[in-house]
Amino acid sequence: MGEPRLFLRLDLTSRISLGPGKIHLLEEIARHGSISAAGRTMKMSYRRAWLLVSELNSHFREPLVTTRLGGTGGGKATVTPLGRAVIRAYRRMEKEAQRIAQRCAAALIEKLHEGPRRGPKKPARRA
Amino acid sequence: MGEPRLFLRLDLTSRISLGPGKIHLLEEIARHGSISAAGRTMKMSYRRAWLLVSELNSHFREPLVTTRLGGTGGGKATVTPLGRAVIRAYRRMEKEAQRIAQRCAAALIEKLHEGPRRGPKKPARRA
Repeated sequence: MGEPRLFLRLDLTSRISLGPGKIHLLEEIARHGSISAAGRTMKMSYRRAWLLVSELNSHFREPLVTTRLGGTGGGKATVTPLGRAVIRAYRRMEKEAQRIAQRCAAALIEKLHEGPRRGPKKPARRA
Repeated sequence: MGEPRLFLRLDLTSRISLGPGKIHLLEEIARHGSISAAGRTMKMSYRRAWLLVSELNSHFREPLVTTRLGGTGGGKATVTPLGRAVIRAYRRMEKEAQRIAQRCAAALIEKLHEGPRRGPKKPARRA
């Protein structure tokens, strides 16, 4: 049945949040050194990837990603030390929260139907 | 600036997840003893509230909410002991995860702009 999975969105303020999408994008930029390549691996348009980076950068005192115009090979994007700190903080939080979720959900998992899904059951109606 | 807030979605399996919406709905049903009243407080149609309850019930061996056809006063809905256990498990998980989030996010919060939002800043382009 696999283990329960947790998705986290952290609202740092009412204006800026961190979730799995933005964090994954930062990780892919760090890996590929390119916003467009990162976007491609996530099946995201360059425009959308760029806007997410721009939004993140705008809320921090220092940028999380810097870009450099390139020559024939195209530009290069770098995840800054602050950007890497953001990734680490989110992944650490996620890992610890996942451990809590497994503990809290254990008793519930036992109460689920196992095997293939049965048809939806209407709430019992007692006359 | 307020403290960071965390939103959690727990996928118990690939087919059934628990998030703030479903949990809040269960809490409102417990409070009002009625799916329609619970839906109203959440500005949700009766149909949508009923479908969410039906979906939850269908994945557990015992229902989380039972309903009874009513007389002139309308029907009555009851959150079962299992339903209450689901609420408690989620809220406990959320509370513990929130504590972790505050700890992990503290250093990031200090790196945010304070005060009113400044205009979006383009990623620095170095030639």
